[in-house]
Amino acid sequence: MALALIHHPVVDKNGQTITAAVTALDLHDIARAAKTYGAEPFYVITPLLDQHDLVDAILDHWVRGLGAQYNPDRKEALALIRTMPSLPEAVADYAKACGARPLTVVTSARMDGSDLCFAALRDLARGERPLLLLFGTAWGLAPEVIEQADHRLASIEGCGDYNHLSVRSAVSIILDRISNRL
Amino acid sequence: MALALIHHPVVDKNGQTITAAVTALDLHDIARAAKTYGAEPFYVITPLLDQHDLVDAILDHWVRGLGAQYNPDRKEALALIRTMPSLPEAVADYAKACGARPLTVVTSARMDGSDLCFAALRDLARGERPLLLLFGTAWGLAPEVIEQADHRLASIEGCGDYNHLSVRSAVSIILDRISNRL
Repeated sequence: MALALIHHPVVDKNGQTITAAVTALDLHDIARAAKTYGAEPFYVITPLLDQHDLVDAILDHWVRGLGAQYNPDRKEALALIRTMPSLPEAVADYAKACGARPLTVVTSARMDGSDLCFAALRDLARGERPLLLLFGTAWGLAPEVIEQADHRLASIEGCGDYNHLSVRSAVSIILDRISNRL
Repeated sequence: MALALIHHPVVDKNGQTITAAVTALDLHDIARAAKTYGAEPFYVITPLLDQHDLVDAILDHWVRGLGAQYNPDRKEALALIRTMPSLPEAVADYAKACGARPLTVVTSARMDGSDLCFAALRDLARGERPLLLLFGTAWGLAPEVIEQADHRLASIEGCGDYNHLSVRSAVSIILDRISNRL
């Protein structure tokens, strides 16, 4: 199972399609959760090449530079990151690594028309087809990404109507629910 | 149930007791998770008064200022924050609000001598005594905080030996496990 954090196409608060900026703490938190729950690679997807340079600079420090000596645990996590210009290229890369096209599963805090509950996702994760979980930044994935994915995961429900988790929290909770270690 | 994010006493990577700096994103992510799962208040604990001023400035913007208009969802979450100079003062504040002394539950990525599994924590959360969950910043809570708490929660286990989640991820996962909505 692999993860993809998508910075384009995502929507802003008005529903317009934008390209979100890469946030350094997303890379750290999501890589640490991915390493903890055995998900890899962690694709960071943006078409902006100067943002690839930013990710490379972060990885240079934590995976190959002084940060790797200072905090080896951080190195292990951030080494899972692969930067990609688009989702199709990430899917193709993961398919090549696995020898099979992965099933894509989109996540959203406001999922209409979900076709996958968490129990079904756990079953899929234990199946033979590789899975690629897609997470959006900003106000979430653009509608075409949600429509074109193989599966639409049910939204995380808390104790009431409020559901505005950070993407860092959502990734952590979804990976924990898949592992189902209570 | 309430949360406390503790910046002192915590330990650094060498096990020395330090006071960690407040991180703005901790406030946002943990407040959003707390609001989603119905935990309040969210105590931010530091003895450094200039750090109280920093938290106040963040809350001024997001709860009472322009940020509240720009993103009302963020306002609802950050309004759960209460700044306190020490853990005993947070316990006293929560006891006063509840009319009963809360049980304190400490969390750690490396918990030796845990006396509470997640199923037992869920039962406690549904019991009559109020609960206060304690989370450490930096390299975790100082030994005396762990020893003096009423309960020591089992560490989150992933799929292997690696367990270096951010405190933001750990809070999210623990609140989700307590809610047990799969």
